[in-house]
Amino acid sequence: MTSYESAIIDGIIERASRYLTEPPRGSDPVIRLASPAELTATFSESVGLAFGETASAHDDKAVLESVEQVIRYSMQTSHPRFVNQNFAGPDPLSVVGDWLGAALNTTGATYEVAPVFTLMESAVLSKLGRIAGYLEESTEKDSDGDDGGLPTLPPGLFCAGGSMGTLFGLQLARHRHQPDVTTRGSNGDRLALFVSDSGHYAASKSAALLGIGTDGVVKVATDHEGSMIPEKLTEAIKASIEAGQTPFAVIATAGTTVTSAFDDLHALADICAEAGLWLHVDGCYGGSALFSDTHAARLGGIERSDSFVWNLHKMMGMTQQCTALLVKDPSQLAACFAARADYLFQSDKLNGEFDSGDRTFQCARRIDVLKLWLTWKVRGDAGFAERIDHAFAMAQHTRKLISASEGKFVPLVSGSFTNVVFAWVPPQLRPLPTNQSGEIDLEALSPEDHVVLNECPPQIKAHMQASGSGMIGFQPIHGLNTFRMICMSTTLQAADVEALLTTIDEAGCQLKS
Amino acid sequence: MTSYESAIIDGIIERASRYLTEPPRGSDPVIRLASPAELTATFSESVGLAFGETASAHDDKAVLESVEQVIRYSMQTSHPRFVNQNFAGPDPLSVVGDWLGAALNTTGATYEVAPVFTLMESAVLSKLGRIAGYLEESTEKDSDGDDGGLPTLPPGLFCAGGSMGTLFGLQLARHRHQPDVTTRGSNGDRLALFVSDSGHYAASKSAALLGIGTDGVVKVATDHEGSMIPEKLTEAIKASIEAGQTPFAVIATAGTTVTSAFDDLHALADICAEAGLWLHVDGCYGGSALFSDTHAARLGGIERSDSFVWNLHKMMGMTQQCTALLVKDPSQLAACFAARADYLFQSDKLNGEFDSGDRTFQCARRIDVLKLWLTWKVRGDAGFAERIDHAFAMAQHTRKLISASEGKFVPLVSGSFTNVVFAWVPPQLRPLPTNQSGEIDLEALSPEDHVVLNECPPQIKAHMQASGSGMIGFQPIHGLNTFRMICMSTTLQAADVEALLTTIDEAGCQLKS
Repeated sequence: MTSYESAIIDGIIERASRYLTEPPRGSDPVIRLASPAELTATFSESVGLAFGETASAHDDKAVLESVEQVIRYSMQTSHPRFVNQNFAGPDPLSVVGDWLGAALNTTGATYEVAPVFTLMESAVLSKLGRIAGYLEESTEKDSDGDDGGLPTLPPGLFCAGGSMGTLFGLQLARHRHQPDVTTRGSNGDRLALFVSDSGHYAASKSAALLGIGTDGVVKVATDHEGSMIPEKLTEAIKASIEAGQTPFAVIATAGTTVTSAFDDLHALADICAEAGLWLHVDGCYGGSALFSDTHAARLGGIERSDSFVWNLHKMMGMTQQCTALLVKDPSQLAACFAARADYLFQSDKLNGEFDSGDRTFQCARRIDVLKLWLTWKVRGDAGFAERIDHAFAMAQHTRKLISASEGKFVPLVSGSFTNVVFAWVPPQLRPLPTNQSGEIDLEALSPEDHVVLNECPPQIKAHMQASGSGMIGFQPIHGLNTFRMICMSTTLQAADVEALLTTIDEAGCQLKS
Repeated sequence: MTSYESAIIDGIIERASRYLTEPPRGSDPVIRLASPAELTATFSESVGLAFGETASAHDDKAVLESVEQVIRYSMQTSHPRFVNQNFAGPDPLSVVGDWLGAALNTTGATYEVAPVFTLMESAVLSKLGRIAGYLEESTEKDSDGDDGGLPTLPPGLFCAGGSMGTLFGLQLARHRHQPDVTTRGSNGDRLALFVSDSGHYAASKSAALLGIGTDGVVKVATDHEGSMIPEKLTEAIKASIEAGQTPFAVIATAGTTVTSAFDDLHALADICAEAGLWLHVDGCYGGSALFSDTHAARLGGIERSDSFVWNLHKMMGMTQQCTALLVKDPSQLAACFAARADYLFQSDKLNGEFDSGDRTFQCARRIDVLKLWLTWKVRGDAGFAERIDHAFAMAQHTRKLISASEGKFVPLVSGSFTNVVFAWVPPQLRPLPTNQSGEIDLEALSPEDHVVLNECPPQIKAHMQASGSGMIGFQPIHGLNTFRMICMSTTLQAADVEALLTTIDEAGCQLKS
């Protein structure tokens, strides 16, 4: 390594480490908003964002300046007031676990090149499988020291994100329904799968990719909170068959993206059992509730599902990405995905029976398990539970503040988990009309009032982006553009929630003046 | 952060940094071979590999001991004698770029949460697109400082690995052929795609997932070196149509997994143009030849293809994973993959026109671009070219040594790029019989000789794994189990190649004694 390289490498390690140990605080901006043109101009002072016809090598000073620009102008997801998305600042233990995995740079496909990580995957997937009720807890002595949790065929696999997990889950579902599609291809049957109208778009994207087609995705109505109405599923299955489709799978959502609502897994499992359908649970977001004794019951019935995708990079603070797809019957993974490449999965090499690469679609796979394994070993089950309980406490605190806000803020759904969906109401519209149940009566609002209410969130958000005072998402719900505060990060405290609401109100009032 | 957490975090940073700046050398073992039982026993002395019924929190001393065990027992892919796979030790600049990305932990889906990285993707994809001839080099002033390379719709996307790139490429191909499959699903037409019999298994895995079925993957014969025979493709297309299939795509391979052979892209493009087929180039491995003026001609005709997948985590030393799927017509990405989620891709937010998330299958995506951007800015085009030229020089050196080995080693294919495929010949079988062209005449060998030759590679490899003296792959080729030495890492030097061959010969001779 040249001294020039060393200076860059040491300089980046120093800056990345400092970012980790001294993360942004409440008084720092969450984002330093810059347009593409502004960022281009900024980087032109160091190494330039683009590459010319001939890309030249830049010196260490310019490169390190560009690294500081990267840090400065990136979204500060570790900032306590980043409540914009269903991921946030990662657990620092996860970050350094990720770093170690990157330094060791190998792939998860074979025991040969990933002996430790293959066993870690087996250990973690077995533990997650037991938590989900797919596997029995061992009745023998079961401590961290023994190898009771290391089967050659664990109940699932790691994959690159939740959408991919749902894609693979649906492929397994179709395979059970029509095993010969894997070899012969679709016979033209119009397959149908069911997901709630609050479910994730991975269902549609997967159906398109699988050759099922987006028309094969039947959206089932949800209740006011965002949970699928089981009776509507029964009706939808009946209607689908009458329309000439062939139902094969239901996707239940455990923690919807917008309201963090949970479908009733027992009710859906009953319907699937009756109709002979595969039950895939999209627990990408809410699956982590299983870590908390207080909240695990939200996924009651999960043990009756066939597959379950769970993003540990969401509530659990793993870095992007860490996704487990759990399956009840892992013997079908190879039937669906094996390619038996003779240069990789040789039958005559050592320990090949542990190879995970011939049970999934991906060949080379980044090591996503190390950071999770490491964080779990440090925090233990109790530390994982704490994370969920804290997120819920912050959401409850937000709801309490909204309820006491005298009409400044109104909830659009009651909300029962970690997302709080609410509108900010301009002073001249307070209080919004309510119906007999005390809910906002949107139909009593004039079209002009609707326009005003709908324009507030993007304008307030833009104001907050410009000042760097907070990052919060918005989307229409029940016909009204509303904020979504996602309580997840361990750095989010009561004072931050209060500051965020104050900022929204102040920014909103400035709009009106 | 508690002092207990700090101790762990600092300890891991220290160990990971040291691994990076003082990587394993020739005298260190490439692997410390351990069985699952041995690893389980080892980790039971720190924190245990498995998780018990209740996973407890471990103290900093035990955790840091486990981290040392992870490093000690993992494959040392940075070791110069790791020639086992078509990835190896990463460029340290890529590792620290990856670290910084992990610390900033965001996702590539939207400009809002990834302003810098969105522009970097645009810059890198534009540059790669120009290298591939998909875009014109700018005729205006085109330096690193201007923003000439930052379109809102760059010619491709980043995805999690080469198999996924091929999957998406084939989805685009099918979409052009039958746009309504995306909505209505497959109509039962038996689609066919063509790939050489030396091509990657991603073709079959993708066909299974897409609902095309593995029967729809027609394997086209290759020449002795592993390149598709264009005339055989023409015949295969004709036969496929006669058999009632509907051809829609051809996958050309630029750098096969075993012999690093290149298909003739011009010849294949001619055939695709004539037959109206999509040409997807699997350049996961060999695409990087484009960085070298000496080797770019191997991909002559790439500009005539429709899509091109390129793993920068292979020859270019990026950490797992860094894959670009380039496409000639990026306007079809949204048509294939958009889901228009209203909580994420709001039309009323700032800079949404740059959002990449609604042009691909994945939603949250790890930031894979930063490490590539950073390494390129440091090394420049010249540094990237050097990497390819060094790899080729090492392969040529290996071939020279084999040729001068007096029959100890024999090449199974001549080989023209970075992989060297050869057999080790036990003393009693030297010299192997040759035909009139001087090639090994495998048919002249007795069945007993075949058995002996086939058993050598796994036995020699197991011996090398046990001693940690080298990691090299093997697979059958032309009916014979042979070694595959992949020259790729910049740390691989002539002395390492010589040492590896000596080790193989010595291990082989011990087998016989």
